[in-house]
Amino acid sequence: MKIAAMRVHSVAIADPPLRSSYGLHAPYALRTIVEIESQDGITGISETYGGETPARALEALRPQVIGADPYRLTGFLSSMVEGEKAGANRSQTFLVPGENPLDATTRTYAAVEVACLDLIGKSVGQPVCDLIGGRVRDEVPFSAYPFYKHAGGGGEGGDRREDEYGEVMTPTALVREVKQMVGKYGFGSIKLKGGVLDPDREIRTVKLLYQELGPEVPLRIDPNCAWTVETSVKVGKALAQELSGGGYLEDPTAGLENMAEVRQRLVAEGIMTPLATNVAVTSFADIPRAIELDAVQVILCDHHYWGGMRQVQHLAKLCKVFGIGLSMHSNSHLGVSLMGMAHVAAATPHLTYACDTHYPWQSEKDEVVAGGRVAIVNGCVRIADKPGLGVELDHDQVARGRERYEKCPYRKRDDEAEMRKHVDPNWRRILPRW
Amino acid sequence: MKIAAMRVHSVAIADPPLRSSYGLHAPYALRTIVEIESQDGITGISETYGGETPARALEALRPQVIGADPYRLTGFLSSMVEGEKAGANRSQTFLVPGENPLDATTRTYAAVEVACLDLIGKSVGQPVCDLIGGRVRDEVPFSAYPFYKHAGGGGEGGDRREDEYGEVMTPTALVREVKQMVGKYGFGSIKLKGGVLDPDREIRTVKLLYQELGPEVPLRIDPNCAWTVETSVKVGKALAQELSGGGYLEDPTAGLENMAEVRQRLVAEGIMTPLATNVAVTSFADIPRAIELDAVQVILCDHHYWGGMRQVQHLAKLCKVFGIGLSMHSNSHLGVSLMGMAHVAAATPHLTYACDTHYPWQSEKDEVVAGGRVAIVNGCVRIADKPGLGVELDHDQVARGRERYEKCPYRKRDDEAEMRKHVDPNWRRILPRW
Repeated sequence: MKIAAMRVHSVAIADPPLRSSYGLHAPYALRTIVEIESQDGITGISETYGGETPARALEALRPQVIGADPYRLTGFLSSMVEGEKAGANRSQTFLVPGENPLDATTRTYAAVEVACLDLIGKSVGQPVCDLIGGRVRDEVPFSAYPFYKHAGGGGEGGDRREDEYGEVMTPTALVREVKQMVGKYGFGSIKLKGGVLDPDREIRTVKLLYQELGPEVPLRIDPNCAWTVETSVKVGKALAQELSGGGYLEDPTAGLENMAEVRQRLVAEGIMTPLATNVAVTSFADIPRAIELDAVQVILCDHHYWGGMRQVQHLAKLCKVFGIGLSMHSNSHLGVSLMGMAHVAAATPHLTYACDTHYPWQSEKDEVVAGGRVAIVNGCVRIADKPGLGVELDHDQVARGRERYEKCPYRKRDDEAEMRKHVDPNWRRILPRW
Repeated sequence: MKIAAMRVHSVAIADPPLRSSYGLHAPYALRTIVEIESQDGITGISETYGGETPARALEALRPQVIGADPYRLTGFLSSMVEGEKAGANRSQTFLVPGENPLDATTRTYAAVEVACLDLIGKSVGQPVCDLIGGRVRDEVPFSAYPFYKHAGGGGEGGDRREDEYGEVMTPTALVREVKQMVGKYGFGSIKLKGGVLDPDREIRTVKLLYQELGPEVPLRIDPNCAWTVETSVKVGKALAQELSGGGYLEDPTAGLENMAEVRQRLVAEGIMTPLATNVAVTSFADIPRAIELDAVQVILCDHHYWGGMRQVQHLAKLCKVFGIGLSMHSNSHLGVSLMGMAHVAAATPHLTYACDTHYPWQSEKDEVVAGGRVAIVNGCVRIADKPGLGVELDHDQVARGRERYEKCPYRKRDDEAEMRKHVDPNWRRILPRW
């Protein structure tokens, strides 16, 4: 089997005005859809970060992809995921995921790997999870991912999407948002995007969630490094009970050393809330130091930037060996990414937390998967007995996504610029803010 | 695709009177050949440790294997390779490989995994290495594995095999053996099984090899824990130059603490010879402590007891992340194991040393692979463009191996008993001996 064609589609998808410590989501999120087609007309697909840089990186790989055997291409390109060196400052603290130049090659590799696996799966009639070791679960649990947000749906003009949740800038509104989301998708755990309101109000939000949902629903909060060590310890103490039942405190503060200090001080108080990260540890090269410092107790994997599904499986085993928990990171994404996340999670024994997903924030109208959006039922994505990722592209929908991309004035994510445009002309990201 | 049949063949293969710190190889080594056959008559094969215990463990798994989908069976059984716990004393110091009860389940799993991968490969026309991530090399380098030995070939009576190398119980005889082996197979590196003669004579052997083969041939010595810390340091110092050019000192002494002390004392003298192990670290559970102590700088993987090919790939990535070298362990084996070793090595980017193999010690007459022995040319096994492991069984040869097994008086490896029978009625394994 040889690869005869590769198509790289840059698309824009409506994204609601979600807030985080990075700033504000723009009306459109950018994604890249990759198709690789074999000589006999079978097509494998994948989805990755959007904008010019990822698309260019994929195009640059075209000479190696065309003519390659999809079974062998991942081995041939393996130096792209084997080259990481432990570096002084690898952290992506100030960069949104997908914009860290240090993981550019692992991101590109991942998009190719997943498309190859989908192609192989479709050619032999096997689900991707069963190609990479075999599923350990048929249903992959995802977590609700509530955000503080401004009023308004995603998109602009004629592409304006419905605003299901309205403005959510208070603890009570957030609880309402969560209940609505849980009612719709059945999520069994909650990950709150924090770092937006004053820490005391975010503490109140979590306490209110705990009160309303009960202790059996795991709660996490992720302020994306918005806090000092002092504030992180204060929040950790204030939420000791609320985050203890299978929850975690994610990236309260920036840097492995600071995370380690937060951990030490919480443990000294008898508070064992695990610290999670997708910022302090974004690569295998970060792990030895993180372990040495006991800076993180949960790592958020993400096949999109960790170098694909097999690298996530390696990461999971490493975490298992060192007693580190494994969760999964997410960015605004469509159904192709969701199925990629579900398949790798299905084939990863040591996945100790429900995965994150932004999927509820996207709209049916932007979905590129044929037949419409992937169902999340009881908080889970079910791995169907379908070949590959289990989804095909709706090419009309891809074309619409491309049109939106062409009309879009930006070519990379910039949540800070969006804040200045819509909220505060002088806004900039300050870390730590509190 | 469903598995319709599983056949477990216990075979005995002639083995020459090789010496190690464990004692003396018996006239026959025991191996198990596994066949799993799909409903449509495609057969996947694997080879593992022999004797009653491994065969019984495989038979016990029969209810889960029959009727299973080979793509899913490995996921379904994954708890067999995910259950390791860090334990107080996991070392297999006093056990020959394959007899450690702590890795019984990972050994059984590996035999099933490899047979599934061979079956899948044969059903889709793809080599195993390209199913598990894709080859990073077409030729897998192996090391010569010279032993001190008594005169005589393997086998007994009518099954007595030719003795190619004669008695090898002196440094000069060992050099002759190596030259003969290198002449026949083209090996580019040498791993000497030590722990047999007085350490001074083993030092002399290595120095003589270095002198005769030149500094460009990497040399290793493995006394299987026969030495004290003092002796290990003494040998490390005496062979500082000889083991420095891509070689290593393997398991000079027993236990992670002792290995760490040897390392510290050698480094303090400016001697950076890496310490390798397949005894102090035999499982993922051993790794955190080994890293903490800097006790080993090279781990010998072996898909037969580390839980299969994908676990070896996880191990390799872990070693890469922590700056640990990766080599490959071997036991007396036939061509099915050799191809398993070659395929996993081909698909493992971070393999930093040529692999061990006992294969030159086995005889064409005992080979179960159709068409005869797998070729080792220029010290390498070439991954052919053949499906699965690239080999099929010669069922007449398997039947002969079963006959030999039936005639064999022993059902497990016992090198100590063999020493008492043939060399010294009072012999027992003493660690450390020197």
